[in-house]
Amino acid sequence: MSRRVRLIVEYDGTGLSGWQRQDNAPSVQGHLEKELTRLLGSPTSILGASRTDAGVHAMAQVAAFDTDHPNFPDRGIRMALNSALPPSIGIRVAETVDPDFHPRFQSSGKHYQYRVLARRNRSPLRRNRVWHIDYELDVERMAQAGTHLVGEHDFTSFRAAGCGAKTATRRITSIEVRRDSDEVIIDVRGNAFLRNMVRIVAGTLVEVGGGRRSADSVAELLANRDRNAAGITAPAQGLTLMRVFFPPDSP
Amino acid sequence: MSRRVRLIVEYDGTGLSGWQRQDNAPSVQGHLEKELTRLLGSPTSILGASRTDAGVHAMAQVAAFDTDHPNFPDRGIRMALNSALPPSIGIRVAETVDPDFHPRFQSSGKHYQYRVLARRNRSPLRRNRVWHIDYELDVERMAQAGTHLVGEHDFTSFRAAGCGAKTATRRITSIEVRRDSDEVIIDVRGNAFLRNMVRIVAGTLVEVGGGRRSADSVAELLANRDRNAAGITAPAQGLTLMRVFFPPDSP
Repeated sequence: MSRRVRLIVEYDGTGLSGWQRQDNAPSVQGHLEKELTRLLGSPTSILGASRTDAGVHAMAQVAAFDTDHPNFPDRGIRMALNSALPPSIGIRVAETVDPDFHPRFQSSGKHYQYRVLARRNRSPLRRNRVWHIDYELDVERMAQAGTHLVGEHDFTSFRAAGCGAKTATRRITSIEVRRDSDEVIIDVRGNAFLRNMVRIVAGTLVEVGGGRRSADSVAELLANRDRNAAGITAPAQGLTLMRVFFPPDSP
Repeated sequence: MSRRVRLIVEYDGTGLSGWQRQDNAPSVQGHLEKELTRLLGSPTSILGASRTDAGVHAMAQVAAFDTDHPNFPDRGIRMALNSALPPSIGIRVAETVDPDFHPRFQSSGKHYQYRVLARRNRSPLRRNRVWHIDYELDVERMAQAGTHLVGEHDFTSFRAAGCGAKTATRRITSIEVRRDSDEVIIDVRGNAFLRNMVRIVAGTLVEVGGGRRSADSVAELLANRDRNAAGITAPAQGLTLMRVFFPPDSP
């Protein structure tokens, strides 16, 4: 009898081509499918909640696969995967769930965190986790700019050229900007995100924080629905998928 | 005219053979000497405050070199080194100091931090920064054990077999053990350290925290002056040199 298994996956995106399976490039999905297929003895495909880009990290990506293997307990799957996967990918939780559980369609929201290191010199210890800029940021201005993006909007201005989504309407539920020692941390929560959306939000807020555009100009550029109106796409290594939310009554 | 330049160096020890220059192995000292020699146009050697082991990190190693290059401002040295060094090594400060400044002989103490990740599964994102153990630690017991090591003692029990120091007497000024989310952080400050001393302290405290030896047994094993009496040498990747102290009146 087939069952559905949910995984919570942590990964260091450095050196990985992102979540999505690709030919000849080491993806998280590709590694998981390869090891699951080997462990379970039959071709296994896996679905993820978020298609993170190359270099983007995850504290808790959510994924699911089906198996009809007769005797592989959840704990055995977790431990066997953790032994077989490369050190950059690890399983935090493996649990059998309702067969209707779907990590993408049922998720009600996601939390992404973007880390900016604002100091004179680069940081060897954090080089794969932050975007380093060598000027000061005004955190209050950035937070003020962020308020213009909260709510349901057409985020065409914050969408990568290659984004294939049918509609650009998304709801951001909160944007928090705070200083943590020499870093500025941007926490973005929303119901769903367009391709590169959080990285373009981060790039735009950093331009505001560095004084290159006003906080209120963000309302205008959002209304313009023009990718060229917004800031640069902040580099991938500063971004981490922190959590995927599901409604309390989801399967 | 020759001048002495002090560097404050941050490095990610992953993949490096440690501070000390070695043939055919990528050391921090080796990288710095190679780039300084190239930049300054004459053979340059550099002294460091701490000879960190392979895999050990530094937030702020202190080092010094001499140069008689006529026109290379400190800022230029810092920027040129940061462009030339591998991404795992970076210069935070370069400044001309008194010609009598000596990073090792004059240092009055050092602060090392050891991070233990105590949770069921390994962490891909922190794999190069923590020692992962899969059992719970009792932080109060560990702190209690640490109090027996504070003060001036013969640390023969906490000294690697190959340690070449003439005497094993050192003074630990403080050991702090605290929980930070799923990690246990051990901060050790002292006037000087024997080879592997902080890692053996960490390994011993983890044995106490896991219930495999009592907190008070640490006083006894210290008195025994026998390396076999203490715990294992905790792995290198959990250790970071946080700071090197100098007396206020040092050159």
